[in-house]
Amino acid sequence: MSHKPYKGFEPKWVMELAPEGSYRSIFRWGDPNFFKVPKESLYRMMKEVFEMTDEDFREYSDDIGWDQVELSGYPVRLDREHIDALREIVGEEGVSTADYDRLAVAYGFTAYDVLRLRHKVIDSLPDVVLYPDTTEQVERIVAYADANDIPLYVYGGGSSVTRGVEPVKGGISLDMRKRFNKVISFNEIDQTITVQAGMSGPDLEKTLQSAPELFGAKRPYTCGHFPQSFEYSSVGGWTVTRGSGQNSTYYGCISDIVLSQKYATPIGTIKTSHYPREACGPDLNQIMMGSEGTFGVLTEVTLKVFRWMPENRRRFSYIFKTWDDAMKAAREMMQHECGFSSVFRLSDQEETNMMLRLYNVDDTPLYPLLDKLGYKDMERCLFLGFTDGEKGYSRNVARNIAKIARRYGGFPLTGYVTKSWEKGRFNDPYLRDTLMDFGITTDTLECTVNWSNMEQVHQDVRKICHALPNTVVTTHMSHCYPQGANLYFIFLTRMQDEKEFKAYHSTILDAIQRSGASISHHHGIGKMFAPWLEGYIGEKEYGVFKVLKNYFDPKYNMNPGGTIGLDLKPEEKISDRRYTDYAEQPKKD
Amino acid sequence: MSHKPYKGFEPKWVMELAPEGSYRSIFRWGDPNFFKVPKESLYRMMKEVFEMTDEDFREYSDDIGWDQVELSGYPVRLDREHIDALREIVGEEGVSTADYDRLAVAYGFTAYDVLRLRHKVIDSLPDVVLYPDTTEQVERIVAYADANDIPLYVYGGGSSVTRGVEPVKGGISLDMRKRFNKVISFNEIDQTITVQAGMSGPDLEKTLQSAPELFGAKRPYTCGHFPQSFEYSSVGGWTVTRGSGQNSTYYGCISDIVLSQKYATPIGTIKTSHYPREACGPDLNQIMMGSEGTFGVLTEVTLKVFRWMPENRRRFSYIFKTWDDAMKAAREMMQHECGFSSVFRLSDQEETNMMLRLYNVDDTPLYPLLDKLGYKDMERCLFLGFTDGEKGYSRNVARNIAKIARRYGGFPLTGYVTKSWEKGRFNDPYLRDTLMDFGITTDTLECTVNWSNMEQVHQDVRKICHALPNTVVTTHMSHCYPQGANLYFIFLTRMQDEKEFKAYHSTILDAIQRSGASISHHHGIGKMFAPWLEGYIGEKEYGVFKVLKNYFDPKYNMNPGGTIGLDLKPEEKISDRRYTDYAEQPKKD
Repeated sequence: MSHKPYKGFEPKWVMELAPEGSYRSIFRWGDPNFFKVPKESLYRMMKEVFEMTDEDFREYSDDIGWDQVELSGYPVRLDREHIDALREIVGEEGVSTADYDRLAVAYGFTAYDVLRLRHKVIDSLPDVVLYPDTTEQVERIVAYADANDIPLYVYGGGSSVTRGVEPVKGGISLDMRKRFNKVISFNEIDQTITVQAGMSGPDLEKTLQSAPELFGAKRPYTCGHFPQSFEYSSVGGWTVTRGSGQNSTYYGCISDIVLSQKYATPIGTIKTSHYPREACGPDLNQIMMGSEGTFGVLTEVTLKVFRWMPENRRRFSYIFKTWDDAMKAAREMMQHECGFSSVFRLSDQEETNMMLRLYNVDDTPLYPLLDKLGYKDMERCLFLGFTDGEKGYSRNVARNIAKIARRYGGFPLTGYVTKSWEKGRFNDPYLRDTLMDFGITTDTLECTVNWSNMEQVHQDVRKICHALPNTVVTTHMSHCYPQGANLYFIFLTRMQDEKEFKAYHSTILDAIQRSGASISHHHGIGKMFAPWLEGYIGEKEYGVFKVLKNYFDPKYNMNPGGTIGLDLKPEEKISDRRYTDYAEQPKKD
Repeated sequence: MSHKPYKGFEPKWVMELAPEGSYRSIFRWGDPNFFKVPKESLYRMMKEVFEMTDEDFREYSDDIGWDQVELSGYPVRLDREHIDALREIVGEEGVSTADYDRLAVAYGFTAYDVLRLRHKVIDSLPDVVLYPDTTEQVERIVAYADANDIPLYVYGGGSSVTRGVEPVKGGISLDMRKRFNKVISFNEIDQTITVQAGMSGPDLEKTLQSAPELFGAKRPYTCGHFPQSFEYSSVGGWTVTRGSGQNSTYYGCISDIVLSQKYATPIGTIKTSHYPREACGPDLNQIMMGSEGTFGVLTEVTLKVFRWMPENRRRFSYIFKTWDDAMKAAREMMQHECGFSSVFRLSDQEETNMMLRLYNVDDTPLYPLLDKLGYKDMERCLFLGFTDGEKGYSRNVARNIAKIARRYGGFPLTGYVTKSWEKGRFNDPYLRDTLMDFGITTDTLECTVNWSNMEQVHQDVRKICHALPNTVVTTHMSHCYPQGANLYFIFLTRMQDEKEFKAYHSTILDAIQRSGASISHHHGIGKMFAPWLEGYIGEKEYGVFKVLKNYFDPKYNMNPGGTIGLDLKPEEKISDRRYTDYAEQPKKD
């Protein structure tokens, strides 16, 4: 990928395909042939913030991972007989004990993972990687692992940011990407599709948008689920972690989109109901979602699908004078009952400052005007999005958003900014590797907040972040509801040591938890957030998860080693810090 | 209530206030001062269908329940010391062991309950009735019942049609209506209200619509939850049974409307999350909803509320030539992504025949025209509803419904029919008592169905019903979703014996189950549907409910005696009959 040439000094960004078999080919995000570098104004800004000079960008300051993966000291500890038995189940091409294949499924994509891979820190490794092909194979593998007490992990799209996939106890990792990715059935009457859990986001979307050719359908469809990790995410990962896509305000989170699930568990196959609603006891679909592989392996998912109607999309962007104005406008839009926008994203003052550069608004004649109009830098907040749905619906939502934005002093910025954002929406993560080569690490944390506590959480978390050394923290609100929204924090810091970074990450997560927000809106818990979970939910409430675990996986072989905290020792847990009592939140403006 | 005089013979309907302390004052539905009788054309129709003459209506053919409740042979079996201890908790006015008070909370409102009360069949009775006032009192009662192994039941609004409230093992019944019905807090920023679980539907709605006066709110609100049992239902009952209101297609079912819950359980207080979505393990809110009192007693509920904007409501009604046309139109409306109608009700051919009389369309000049226009009696299907929400949203939904109805041959019938339906929507149940006095019993069953299986379920269930003696079965579709809808069966039969009726009811429920529908969309399971539940859900799946029960209530004192099947013996369960595999349903028109 070419980019706009710098006028001044430009660092020697890594713009080469990583060698096959190298560490970089594992830890680098996304398409190996796609590269993204910061534009010059962003580069200048970063130097300023982190007190760096061009000198700091003359040499890579971190390992760029060009070496071949060759592991010594990490022998396969699983007995030969087990590997033979597993080969019996999945066939010759379904098994690997090669170093590269083992390391390739050992980590997810949180910065802690990437830093460890850059520094060749191998904390975890499966003994064997399996590539199952059918549900029956997965069911047999689960039964075998359970019978022989072998830890079992699942690698879906690989984009976990919670150490959810990390095989901390070795054993088996199922790599679902290669073969467990097929359509099982498509039902146009009900508007559903049933797929194997390893199907990737892009494969699913391509399938649905090609429904007329593939299934003789009347029209193309969409799943409506587009997380930022879209390209390297899987249907199974979305489901077991309770993910959300960037368009969730209209299409719903995955917990709304999933109609039915099938799991291979140590006690056998579990199949949930396929009705849109029922009154038949606790909701099993909502019990299995969020289990993150600890109850068993998700094999098949039936998803609701929507009509693909991009022609009805209406893009909008507005700038507000303050975060307070913008927040109030956003709340009014969500409570107005005019329908919901598909993408709905409101940046706070710091993120707006960065976004206007990232999306090239600083190159337009509008940029200098904003200050003059009273929309001041580091106060103003950018709001953007687009609507979906039937034509009249989409138009009505956009009209009401315009009306409410005006009422709260919003200044319309046309669809230009939104289009720029759309172009970057899935490739911003590519920037991360480029920056990490020079010692700047970036990661994200997010949480759900009720409207009545929004200002408090935003203030508290930023305050903690600003007290940390060399930190930029930008925040946006997305995934909105009438009763609250997700707050999403992106932080950049000059830091390379993985242990130091882990402590840093913990400080922010802790601040979120203490501020009265939920620990996670859509990233899940994994092994990284697990120490906080019991304290967050409450001891007796958390006990529910434990009895479910004991029922499905009494021998603790499914994703063991701390996932959602189930097998953590008491001393590994963060002491009880309950979320604010809802009754104590403000009730009136 | 007066009514249009009959031209011919009119039965001596019971139009008098039932005596205080009488059986009738317990089993009769609703407001003691409100009466409803069938209009003459409906009376004629019934005589025809059931092969009855005016002679059959000269005398009441069933006990009309005028006698005083005086029980002998039903002593209080709970030890004096327990009653004293409970009095200590709730105070003098919080306890009763009077016959009438005990019987008043012993049954719900399924026809089996009413027939038993008419015939003075006392199968169940609590030993003591408590009227708690505070959450703390309920928590202490639960702890006491658990410590002393006393069965504990809850009576909310009293309108259970599944024997959910029946204290089959005696012990304590909590009558929540009297005192456990207060607002705890109202949060206008988040648009939520927190109430005690015993609050009734009308009290909640009155509170929300008076929010400006009561809480100094900016505007009035609504909960949007209006089950047909509205007047005699409670927030707690809605929640623990997973109820749905008639406006659920827009506002959602109670499982969408509830934000947070608090329970008093034998292991202590359980509080669920108050965030609109999160990714923190299995969803505890969806685990507790559907527990129907078997995990503990629901004490407090936080509900999402909506803006009260009746001025935006758009009423519509259409008539279709056939059920097939109508069903296809309904599906298209639900999948069109133009927003959702609030009330959305489609009657099949038999119900249409009755509805047109019930709602006086047979008195209009339109009626004879319909046949001429090709909308033939016993083929045509009535579709009605109204839209809610912001003005533009409401209009857009109504416009699209009109467009789609036209495309499928729907003939517009104006808002007249819908208004008639609205007038009767909560008082149709009053007809039941009037008819039962003359030996005609009516009851309802309902289920969820995917669109692809809709025709099959409708056919199968009607076939079974038509094979039963003296039966009218009318069906409507309501509570609709893009992936399916609720099918609601109302059946009328000339039958008085409670045992005979129970067997009859079972036959229909069994037919529903075998047809591939869910057992219940919104009535819940209770003790009446419980024998089918494990077979329906699957043994391993049902095991989840059992481990949850063992966790919350290891001594089985909470709503014991078969509720959601938890303490049924194997021989009390219906042998395994699984729902149709989803994969086997049709996929294309």
